[in-house]
Amino acid sequence: MNTLFVPDLLWDGREARRGWGVVVAGDRIAAVGPLGALDAPGGRRVDLADAAVLAAPVNAHSHAFQRAIRGRTQTRPAGRPDADFWSWRREMYRAVLAYDPETLHAISRDCFAEMRSAGWGSVGEFHYVHRDRDGRPYDDPLTLSDAVIEAARAAGLRITLLYVAYATADVDGSPLGDDQRRFRSDSVDDVLRAVSDLRDRWAGDPRVSVGLAPHSVRAVPASWWRPLADGAAALDVPLHAHVAEQVREVDACVAVHGRRPVEFLADQGVLSERFTAVHATHLTDGEVRLLAEAGARVCACPSTERDLGDGVLPGDRLSGAGVPVCLGSDSHTLIDPWEELRLPEYHLRLVERRRIVLGEADGPVVRWAPGALRSATEVGGDALRTGAGRLTPGAPADLVALDLAHPALAGADDEVFAEVVAVAARAGVARPVTPLPDPQTGDRSEATSA
Amino acid sequence: MNTLFVPDLLWDGREARRGWGVVVAGDRIAAVGPLGALDAPGGRRVDLADAAVLAAPVNAHSHAFQRAIRGRTQTRPAGRPDADFWSWRREMYRAVLAYDPETLHAISRDCFAEMRSAGWGSVGEFHYVHRDRDGRPYDDPLTLSDAVIEAARAAGLRITLLYVAYATADVDGSPLGDDQRRFRSDSVDDVLRAVSDLRDRWAGDPRVSVGLAPHSVRAVPASWWRPLADGAAALDVPLHAHVAEQVREVDACVAVHGRRPVEFLADQGVLSERFTAVHATHLTDGEVRLLAEAGARVCACPSTERDLGDGVLPGDRLSGAGVPVCLGSDSHTLIDPWEELRLPEYHLRLVERRRIVLGEADGPVVRWAPGALRSATEVGGDALRTGAGRLTPGAPADLVALDLAHPALAGADDEVFAEVVAVAARAGVARPVTPLPDPQTGDRSEATSA
Repeated sequence: MNTLFVPDLLWDGREARRGWGVVVAGDRIAAVGPLGALDAPGGRRVDLADAAVLAAPVNAHSHAFQRAIRGRTQTRPAGRPDADFWSWRREMYRAVLAYDPETLHAISRDCFAEMRSAGWGSVGEFHYVHRDRDGRPYDDPLTLSDAVIEAARAAGLRITLLYVAYATADVDGSPLGDDQRRFRSDSVDDVLRAVSDLRDRWAGDPRVSVGLAPHSVRAVPASWWRPLADGAAALDVPLHAHVAEQVREVDACVAVHGRRPVEFLADQGVLSERFTAVHATHLTDGEVRLLAEAGARVCACPSTERDLGDGVLPGDRLSGAGVPVCLGSDSHTLIDPWEELRLPEYHLRLVERRRIVLGEADGPVVRWAPGALRSATEVGGDALRTGAGRLTPGAPADLVALDLAHPALAGADDEVFAEVVAVAARAGVARPVTPLPDPQTGDRSEATSA
Repeated sequence: MNTLFVPDLLWDGREARRGWGVVVAGDRIAAVGPLGALDAPGGRRVDLADAAVLAAPVNAHSHAFQRAIRGRTQTRPAGRPDADFWSWRREMYRAVLAYDPETLHAISRDCFAEMRSAGWGSVGEFHYVHRDRDGRPYDDPLTLSDAVIEAARAAGLRITLLYVAYATADVDGSPLGDDQRRFRSDSVDDVLRAVSDLRDRWAGDPRVSVGLAPHSVRAVPASWWRPLADGAAALDVPLHAHVAEQVREVDACVAVHGRRPVEFLADQGVLSERFTAVHATHLTDGEVRLLAEAGARVCACPSTERDLGDGVLPGDRLSGAGVPVCLGSDSHTLIDPWEELRLPEYHLRLVERRRIVLGEADGPVVRWAPGALRSATEVGGDALRTGAGRLTPGAPADLVALDLAHPALAGADDEVFAEVVAVAARAGVARPVTPLPDPQTGDRSEATSA
């Protein structure tokens, strides 16, 4: 049955529209436009009072299980001022070792439910916990991937499971540490088979898709990159990797390969429009150019990058070169797409001491907010290759409503709607619009909010 | 009538307590402690299920009317990349010229209501719009101060009206521009009389207090500082000023006075424990020392400072010297005390590329979150000299509850309560606990939420 959603205001990705509606048929958007021009839906009409509807944000990079350590890595030993990404990682590894399939499912489900309540409509789960607590494969080696996918289904969140290849402890090829034993991939073939099997297994659910994620230049042998990239192309799935989050990784890559991470990946044929470089915090202008020339994009995770002290995304150089940026909540220190989308601009303002650093000309002015909203939506959909994040016919019907009666949004007139949302919206102001699925049947035909 | 509030968890400013309660008598806290040790309140008991109660955050620096331009300064002319604090200020001035007492009251009331709903319990309103639209004094020269105070009363927010002295356009003593005509103070005596009159006028309302705020080294003549500081001491009111928000101000101060702003204020006898330096973004180590030696404090406004591209608060150097930091939402780009309190630490992590930059030893570990919570509460109460922000007998009864059943706070066990709040709480997770006053009578004896 079709449902026509009629909000006060529709943000179509470019501008605010009044008197427009969205027709949803099952899992997909059927039509978007002025109410007069929409076909009679032959179904239900849901009026959304005091609501602005937009395509739900796409969370392009997540490690759901890390939600469990929120707040638990916010101290350091007295007398040792060296708390950083690496000391955080040791604590994160300890958490990983405790999970069984049931607990991983439960923490992931709660994390995805928090995402959904905050306004994210879909997630790219960069999943690298594959083996049991002793480092042995489960009887079904995809047990933990399935547990995570089922968690997203139970929470009503669309998921792209980005299956991770992980085989070395550092760029020099050193073997995995004992605390990394649950991540290990045995071979390129095993990784490609896992991705292919997952895709076949979940082909019946339009809310589930898969991708391939060589973890990083630290965790993937040099010889694996080209066949993994070729495999992603053959399977026609997205290809994601952590890139240049930390200076130490860049230095190690230069020491071993004589090339910086993006340069090395370019040599291996990894860069393409299929590829998303996660973090990309430490880039030369030459690396920015390589990403741009390949049509690749970057996934920024600014709330995590500020938490881990990674550094500030070079968003101005990426934008100048035409490299699109999407967003992820990554370690889930905080889950709030509206906070995430303002941070790339704000972090640049802090270090460059000027305003409206990012942005694009819109008539006589440069605006940064519409681009920030596109980062949170369209670019994420491109990264996951799901088409999510756009209000266009055929796209996934992931809609979110912002409460225009909320004090935080007072004054969000049409001409400044994007700007008010970008600076002041937060999770409590948003709610999902499109139906929660029945966790048993996956049925999305019944709306749960109106 | 006394009311005993019994939450699941009480954050007493140092640690999480179970089985504790707070007794409120009228406008004040009467007792705090284990339930067994509290006197029978002889009144009502309100159980707060799934709630963590703490002293409500104190917003130590606000310009309420700037809420009206939220989102309206987030563009720049195409082809001119010079958007900064000063271009923002021109737009803000344009907004100021439009208000009459009724519209100033209305926008302030809405702003204060948003503050209250976000969790702030009291505000220091740095109020500098004194004259009518033509720059003439109103028949009652305190008309606009009263309008702002009445707005806070109507919204149920405790207010300290920081009456601003404003007389010059820059450090060189140049006359005010036409767009600054509503701010003008005629003399030191006029300013001190206004503060004294306001204090007398509002003496009957325990939720209203006053302070004195020489605007900045730009807007106050050199000869005014010492008598204004002496006047604040004689009146026993807080003394606040904008200090070193922008490099240009520092440079102008050095050019005219041969001294940086904090050095200049020290020479004029302004620094004391009564004094709060707002922003203090650009400080030498010597200036940090001057603040520390005087017992002065800093008010950071990090959500505004990121929006305006001011720079990063030197919180590590301030903390190292023992200068307390409180918080303000200032321009109200965003109103969220929970976001505000994490930004000083997070902004330092971004530029220093390490974690737990601020903090204090707590046994074997260094923790930053309890200090961040104290910045948002106790230090703000010290800055406004109201005693707010502490759960101690006699303090203002401004309580806020965080929803422990909210997904954002899942996992906030006692030992990491402060850390989870610091990284993940947001306005939608908080609600005021203590009674909304009746806007007609100011009566706070009836609780409106339980």
